[in-house]
Amino acid sequence: MKYKKVNSDLIAQFEAIVDQSAIILDREQLIQYAKDETEDLKYFPEVVIKPGSVEEVSKIVKLCNEHYIPITPRGAGTGLSGGALPIYGGVVLSVERLDKILNIDERNLQITVEPGVITQVLQETVAEKGLFYPPDPASRGSCFIGGNIAENSGGPKAVKYGVVKDYVLNLEVVLPNGEMIWTGANVLKNATGYNLTQLVVGSEGTLGIVTKIVLKLIPHPKHDLLMLVPFTSAEKACEAVSEIFRAGVTPSAMEFMERDAIEWSLKYNNKSTIQLDDETEAHLLIEVDGNYPDILMEECETIMKIVEQFDCGDILFADNAKQKEDLWQLRRTVGEAVKANSIYKEEDTVVPRAELPELLKGVKEIGKKYGFKSVCYGHAGDGNLHINIIKGDMSNDDWNERLSEGIKEIFQLCHQLGGTISGEHGIGLVQKEYLNIVFSDLQIDLMRSIKGIFDPNGIMNPGKIF
Amino acid sequence: MKYKKVNSDLIAQFEAIVDQSAIILDREQLIQYAKDETEDLKYFPEVVIKPGSVEEVSKIVKLCNEHYIPITPRGAGTGLSGGALPIYGGVVLSVERLDKILNIDERNLQITVEPGVITQVLQETVAEKGLFYPPDPASRGSCFIGGNIAENSGGPKAVKYGVVKDYVLNLEVVLPNGEMIWTGANVLKNATGYNLTQLVVGSEGTLGIVTKIVLKLIPHPKHDLLMLVPFTSAEKACEAVSEIFRAGVTPSAMEFMERDAIEWSLKYNNKSTIQLDDETEAHLLIEVDGNYPDILMEECETIMKIVEQFDCGDILFADNAKQKEDLWQLRRTVGEAVKANSIYKEEDTVVPRAELPELLKGVKEIGKKYGFKSVCYGHAGDGNLHINIIKGDMSNDDWNERLSEGIKEIFQLCHQLGGTISGEHGIGLVQKEYLNIVFSDLQIDLMRSIKGIFDPNGIMNPGKIF
Repeated sequence: MKYKKVNSDLIAQFEAIVDQSAIILDREQLIQYAKDETEDLKYFPEVVIKPGSVEEVSKIVKLCNEHYIPITPRGAGTGLSGGALPIYGGVVLSVERLDKILNIDERNLQITVEPGVITQVLQETVAEKGLFYPPDPASRGSCFIGGNIAENSGGPKAVKYGVVKDYVLNLEVVLPNGEMIWTGANVLKNATGYNLTQLVVGSEGTLGIVTKIVLKLIPHPKHDLLMLVPFTSAEKACEAVSEIFRAGVTPSAMEFMERDAIEWSLKYNNKSTIQLDDETEAHLLIEVDGNYPDILMEECETIMKIVEQFDCGDILFADNAKQKEDLWQLRRTVGEAVKANSIYKEEDTVVPRAELPELLKGVKEIGKKYGFKSVCYGHAGDGNLHINIIKGDMSNDDWNERLSEGIKEIFQLCHQLGGTISGEHGIGLVQKEYLNIVFSDLQIDLMRSIKGIFDPNGIMNPGKIF
Repeated sequence: MKYKKVNSDLIAQFEAIVDQSAIILDREQLIQYAKDETEDLKYFPEVVIKPGSVEEVSKIVKLCNEHYIPITPRGAGTGLSGGALPIYGGVVLSVERLDKILNIDERNLQITVEPGVITQVLQETVAEKGLFYPPDPASRGSCFIGGNIAENSGGPKAVKYGVVKDYVLNLEVVLPNGEMIWTGANVLKNATGYNLTQLVVGSEGTLGIVTKIVLKLIPHPKHDLLMLVPFTSAEKACEAVSEIFRAGVTPSAMEFMERDAIEWSLKYNNKSTIQLDDETEAHLLIEVDGNYPDILMEECETIMKIVEQFDCGDILFADNAKQKEDLWQLRRTVGEAVKANSIYKEEDTVVPRAELPELLKGVKEIGKKYGFKSVCYGHAGDGNLHINIIKGDMSNDDWNERLSEGIKEIFQLCHQLGGTISGEHGIGLVQKEYLNIVFSDLQIDLMRSIKGIFDPNGIMNPGKIF
């Protein structure tokens, strides 16, 4: 291993850069930086540093680069692929103190923020001015915008409004040598050189540390309608999804939940918001938004006509803000609910939307073959299906040894269907063994070589993606 | 110069790959591949090859790479930055025979095409199925989708629907060593490795040759309204632009034309579609689209209320398809009209939308300082202003020597305003001397190094961008 350890001499140098209170060495405190939301993985950093300015970030990174100290950039630690885990120890560089909204440019519908701003705070701040930043991962109440950039996050609204990459105009990045660049310009169109902005978005902190972010905003839609549609067949629910889009309606959310998902979430939230019919196998949570209530009603009617053709049950319309929030809360906490219920592994498959029924069917068949159950849910409108594989009665040996074969089969199926192995969670640590299912050596070599240009010493979030 | 010449031995090898009729050596025929739509530049290739399959592309590229023969990929030759000019001779690889629409996937709202499909043909083919591919460069009647990918083209609809990059899901690319990769997957969300797709989009043919393209489609809007609004002040017209967006209306086109632009276009088209008032200094051509005529009327009323505050004249509403097409024709041929009228240079500036008045004012001031006139027009909603600099009475010496200083000042102003030097035309050949206005050496080195990974021998469209 080429990496060096963080010695007391280096600590002293860090202390010359940032305030001592921004350096964590105590093991009791380090533990919260040893984990993220990925299974129960735990890797201790040697030190956590919380810089308060881009200049401090730059100096810390430069020092680490000179001394071959691995750096793991960290947002709020809500990641689901282990991207923020310091697997080689070294420095965790937390952006939590870089938490300022620097400028809301209402003339140009843009916002400039630091990476440590909580996504929901950003959203609510701009909403007060009638503006909208749509990407809304389930963790939006705690995750940082910087982490969202690293993973190219999505969320329910992506189906109508796109993912993070569609809103990032320009990024200030501290490169692994400590130098700072802007990746583009604050413009809606750009044909000036290679698109470094889009290269950094979704690069999972392996190319540098994002220190400022310029995002595009749009006018906030004034109204929305939300409906929960039960189906007696999960596959039929999936089939209804692409029919709705083919009818020319683009919902602002189109979420799929298997019965277990919503049942466990109801229990987890200790709610009885909805009554589950015995025959219900899955739900679609469908939202439409816009500025004209009449049109939203019309769109809902179109949707209703379609879902009826796929054996749906009684549709629940949320008729006030509280009920809407309750339904969204149920959807957002599915992941946590599953987690609380069993040992699990979460996969983040994505296929072309109309291939969802095929994917779901395949997942269940593969489950039978390998002896695992799965709870499936996610952003059906994008073809993005989260598959929570449940340990249940599986033996430890099967879980630890045989399961990865089953996961491989799922990912191979995704690839066959024109899809890939992550829609919004990233590859990070836990998916990298599967990367060669969707990429040839040639593709991976290209990516590795790009990494090498940015980070010749390999200090920036090592062991991730590749 | 490291490049080799194409000798008879190589020609024989090319003839073993493609049919002889797909190889052009005759100077009379080569001339049409020596030019594009950029000023009056002319560079002859040694040979033009028109492969008929990706396998042929691969073999040709491999051969050129082994023999250090420069390759210039070429679409329809409608580029405005000289990207398709073979400045080092060698091979022009024309994709004109790769002109098939391979698959329209109505279930998933996707289309797979070869690069030589004419953009308008693609648009009309999907429109017949009620689907919409929005990016529509002015040259859409003749340009190829492959060239649009290379330049990350925009067009009037970009303001509401985004540019080419927002529709590209996946690309098949022949790399400079002749190997073939797909850059991503056919999905709407993707967090699997670096975004090679977006690295190739807008890379102006310097990283490889795109041989298949998977595009996202959307439902086609059913109605549109078009209005032409005259203003007594060009700056006020620009000021009105950002106010319209701030009012929550997102038009599907928001085009700006200075008086000269529309006057010359009227003359060029030999039309009297509109009467120009003596006091009119500029026009906005504004389109709204959607599925509900009542709402479009409401949006038009909102727009009218706003433009009235900026001293507009009598608004012309296009009340039938013919009149709409006439107005669009006027707009689309402004570039050609200016070209027919004078020696010119076209710049493709872009700034945040609300900075347009400042940019326009600055351009005119810089023009006075250097003694040039300019005709400005373009996609005001995106802040993308095309500046046609007119030679007029300028001396040849001033035109050839001094003008580039003036252009530098314009670009510096763009940069100061948060913008950059190309919104949709690319850097190509003619803008590369200005690249260091917006990028530091560090940024340019990163881009060059990425180029080096893809193309270590530097054979792929050499002399462009950098």
